[in-house]
Amino acid sequence: MILHTYFRSGASWRVRIALALKGLDVQARPHNLRTGQQRDPAYLEINPQGLLPALELDDGAVITQSLAIMGYLEAIRPDPPLLPAAPLKRAQVQAFALSIACDIHPVQNLKVLQRVRALASDEAATHWARDVISEGLDASEKLLSKTDDAFCFGDAPSLADIVLVPQLVNARRFGADIPPRLSRIEAHCMTLPAFRQTRPDAQPDATPD
Amino acid sequence: MILHTYFRSGASWRVRIALALKGLDVQARPHNLRTGQQRDPAYLEINPQGLLPALELDDGAVITQSLAIMGYLEAIRPDPPLLPAAPLKRAQVQAFALSIACDIHPVQNLKVLQRVRALASDEAATHWARDVISEGLDASEKLLSKTDDAFCFGDAPSLADIVLVPQLVNARRFGADIPPRLSRIEAHCMTLPAFRQTRPDAQPDATPD
Repeated sequence: MILHTYFRSGASWRVRIALALKGLDVQARPHNLRTGQQRDPAYLEINPQGLLPALELDDGAVITQSLAIMGYLEAIRPDPPLLPAAPLKRAQVQAFALSIACDIHPVQNLKVLQRVRALASDEAATHWARDVISEGLDASEKLLSKTDDAFCFGDAPSLADIVLVPQLVNARRFGADIPPRLSRIEAHCMTLPAFRQTRPDAQPDATPD
Repeated sequence: MILHTYFRSGASWRVRIALALKGLDVQARPHNLRTGQQRDPAYLEINPQGLLPALELDDGAVITQSLAIMGYLEAIRPDPPLLPAAPLKRAQVQAFALSIACDIHPVQNLKVLQRVRALASDEAATHWARDVISEGLDASEKLLSKTDDAFCFGDAPSLADIVLVPQLVNARRFGADIPPRLSRIEAHCMTLPAFRQTRPDAQPDATPD
């Protein structure tokens, strides 16, 4: 399997964590989002959305969208599970992940901030990202159960933690507020090799800021 | 079960379609997004994100995020299925749904357009929505299989159709381009009672534009 990725792409990092947790190996193929390599016609043939990540299977079939890719990984390698089996708990973990993956991440991605920049200014784009992330994380945190678990839900990492940790890197970049409990969960996740070894600055395609 | 909904909320419509397809009954509790009822403290206790829909179970447990709610419905009432069983096909249906649910819908929702309006103008907000939807649908369409099925994937409605149809209402509202195949799929979906009877203007809380 080939993972089309970029060291700084938060959605790509999610998939790297899931692969590491499940002990699955892939070949990484980097595309530099800053220089627009995701819009190369050859890559658009693979992913018409021009977004990262995309997973190319050995027979050439392609899966796009990080959450769909992780669903596939869960199906082919169920252990360790990324989601609880009980329907309600499972839906609540998914809802937390979606509160970030739908309502924060895409509203502050590179493409949207370029639109804001074109419409107003660099400063307006930074404020936009900071506000979207601060407000979003504040609401997302309230979706967690009231128990002060080490991870988002319980004592093992789940899809919720996988989506949370990369978002917090962006939060810091834009000076957004991070609720204390989310910081504690992040610190705990970063003690695990699956999170630590897949982080952006540890990737072969990483460049200095 | 209580579904917190609003007639014009596209994400609420998704859940109404899924409930209808599965023949599940719920009590609808409308919240008017235009007058800001989703920010009432009582509703924020139910969904701290202040978004619709939310599903309240009989024991008071709450599930937010339309895709998580539909995952729950799939678990408690597996027939008819919203997703294929085969992992690759399943992931591809999910990827199409996510290409709209993550990369179009949240980037043109009421809250984001209010931000654009505050930053620039009403006209800029309309252009923003139109561009995001046109570009997004163009890419999403290319994620469909090349066969010209009646629905997005095959001969039965899936999560892909459920997410597509409400997005096309927004596309028209903002004058976005709709790829012809997506229009054909929509027309076919609207022949089904589960889509037709759950449409925004058929809801008890509907008001004239």
